[in-house]
Amino acid sequence: MLPQDMLALGTKRSAIRELFEYGKMRKAIVGDDKVYDFSLGNPSIPAPKEVDDAITELVQNGDSVLLHGYSSAQGDANVRKTIADYLNATHGTKFNADNLYMTCGAAASLCISLRALLLKDEEVIVFAPFFPEYVVFVEGQGGKAVVVPPTKTFQPDLEAFEKAISDKTKAVIINSPNNPSGVVYSEETIIAIADILKRKSEELGREIFIIADEPYRELVYDADTVVPYITKYYDNTLVCYSYSKSLSLPGERIGYILVPDEVFDSKNVYASVCGAGRSLGYVCAPTMFQQVVAKCCGKTGDISAYKKNRDLIYNGLTELGYECVKPDGAFYLFVKALEEDSNAFCERAKAHDLLVVSGDGFYCPGYVRISYCVSEKTIIDSMPAFKALSEEYKK
Amino acid sequence: MLPQDMLALGTKRSAIRELFEYGKMRKAIVGDDKVYDFSLGNPSIPAPKEVDDAITELVQNGDSVLLHGYSSAQGDANVRKTIADYLNATHGTKFNADNLYMTCGAAASLCISLRALLLKDEEVIVFAPFFPEYVVFVEGQGGKAVVVPPTKTFQPDLEAFEKAISDKTKAVIINSPNNPSGVVYSEETIIAIADILKRKSEELGREIFIIADEPYRELVYDADTVVPYITKYYDNTLVCYSYSKSLSLPGERIGYILVPDEVFDSKNVYASVCGAGRSLGYVCAPTMFQQVVAKCCGKTGDISAYKKNRDLIYNGLTELGYECVKPDGAFYLFVKALEEDSNAFCERAKAHDLLVVSGDGFYCPGYVRISYCVSEKTIIDSMPAFKALSEEYKK
Repeated sequence: MLPQDMLALGTKRSAIRELFEYGKMRKAIVGDDKVYDFSLGNPSIPAPKEVDDAITELVQNGDSVLLHGYSSAQGDANVRKTIADYLNATHGTKFNADNLYMTCGAAASLCISLRALLLKDEEVIVFAPFFPEYVVFVEGQGGKAVVVPPTKTFQPDLEAFEKAISDKTKAVIINSPNNPSGVVYSEETIIAIADILKRKSEELGREIFIIADEPYRELVYDADTVVPYITKYYDNTLVCYSYSKSLSLPGERIGYILVPDEVFDSKNVYASVCGAGRSLGYVCAPTMFQQVVAKCCGKTGDISAYKKNRDLIYNGLTELGYECVKPDGAFYLFVKALEEDSNAFCERAKAHDLLVVSGDGFYCPGYVRISYCVSEKTIIDSMPAFKALSEEYKK
Repeated sequence: MLPQDMLALGTKRSAIRELFEYGKMRKAIVGDDKVYDFSLGNPSIPAPKEVDDAITELVQNGDSVLLHGYSSAQGDANVRKTIADYLNATHGTKFNADNLYMTCGAAASLCISLRALLLKDEEVIVFAPFFPEYVVFVEGQGGKAVVVPPTKTFQPDLEAFEKAISDKTKAVIINSPNNPSGVVYSEETIIAIADILKRKSEELGREIFIIADEPYRELVYDADTVVPYITKYYDNTLVCYSYSKSLSLPGERIGYILVPDEVFDSKNVYASVCGAGRSLGYVCAPTMFQQVVAKCCGKTGDISAYKKNRDLIYNGLTELGYECVKPDGAFYLFVKALEEDSNAFCERAKAHDLLVVSGDGFYCPGYVRISYCVSEKTIIDSMPAFKALSEEYKK
């Protein structure tokens, strides 16, 4: 007798992975350039040169035993200091090494934070549309996900948010720039969320935490787009960061959790994070990549390629009559399906070898996600297929 | 209100880490060469040259997007095939890529396996002495650890083992070569354990799994020492492996879980492993190091250094009158304390700047663990201190 929840999670693959595997199979049949695979959020630009230079330098000149040996569970102290200094210089904050806990990437950051905070059956609020694995992570750590339905702009529905807060609410996950909508939550939104949380915390007599999931922070494309740094608006904020997207290192599993001093009972929250990491089997974050990201603080891959892609696909699809909110960041476009049932729409797209992900999984039916972290050519070549698909619906 | 179990785990550091931090502080005061730090199981020999060569080659010639991108959750298919082939050539087994699930090291392998197998409050049997984090991992995944007390040879107490099996037993952890005793469980022992499990499984009408935790498999020092490959003796065996010790890569977090076809309901156990990995936030094992270990299959660091250390410290201490079982493998010596209270003994050792870990944490009071993955010089220089310590007890 196996735990049925684990078995179900392992048997029923995520819809995104399923589609990606289908794409691989289909490409083998009709050719790579005939399948327009917009399924995965896997960065398509190489890591910046600084990453490979750092690796080569560390391997050539580093002490092997230190380089590949255990770091402390929190992560190398110098690495954490470097990251704190970078954050302070960028955001005008006052963090230090002891506010940071290095992790094996964003998923680890989230699971560890949730395990560190949640008592059994406490609730975590998520704003639709959102990354489907949030529910897996929350439930895996003993909590319950409470979904706030989407608005048309994909900025959070503040009224519904306030109503969703209960005497079991422990945390709210904020993901901006957002997967799958590409929307950046405005400063106004962040201030409003913070105000509601302060009021409700007092009213309910309980601390409520924001968990800011920020792997896309650096991926914004317009000069006037500002991604508010949430710790400056709300004290009880933990930041979960990953270098997966900014440095194009998603497979290397490297990121961190930031627990500012302003967090209520900060030292104990940090200790609980350390305990949760132990309990989940995270001994330390990969040590060589700890050094690599410290050496590459503030660097990114060539993000201009994503901006070009965004403009190409957003302009192309809106010209064809598709409806979507223009994404400010990340590398996703969230498009209204041409029929109510977005799963059915995805199936019809598939017949044109257009692989897009149904919004149902993101708790936002009627939409589809297009990951535009692909080659420019894929976008250009896909336009006739998008055109043919939309024309089908006009018949 | 934070979860008190996580807070406790994060606040109360492991005794080993505590001692290690003390050692660092003490070295800063009296000098590196005046402190004989035998606390940590951190490999002291560098990774084999092949590791750094593989990294350099991958970074120079690999496609950055593929090299650092996500692999499938199970791990790269070619990497898994290479490892399966290596295991088959070494042990005469018939594994294939689909029996393997790549992980972020041994702790991840154990936590994922336990989460994949355990229903709430099911029991996992461990043989003392054992690595203290086993209890953390078992409890973290909702199970209960049941401890079988040690014998004088540190081979498992088979009678006590049989008595410990109940209608809640789901798994037994076997760790050989053993941390902290260095003992290798004989083939006779493995056969006896398998026989008992087969009998009790039938009697209780439930499947019981062996979880073989094998990070020290390659670290054995005598020509006649054989470490039985447990899947050949007992069908329901999952192997949790890590390259931490064999390739001296403990910080890089890379290992695997092996689920042989012979395991009961094998496909579902594997699926449950995949589900557990998702639930705990393990997206994939670090991708570049997946490639590195595939290129270094069967290689090890220069293990002869550990053998030399073992002989030096074993002979040195027994000549001084200390009692211990000669270790066949790993890099630990488990020595009888010179008084009943091994914590008190450790404190007295500390006064001589000898840092050894009390057996209490390993569920084996009256002993201390000496990690001899240190420089030869440390061992030689420490002998006068060990002598002075033993003489203190003769007064």
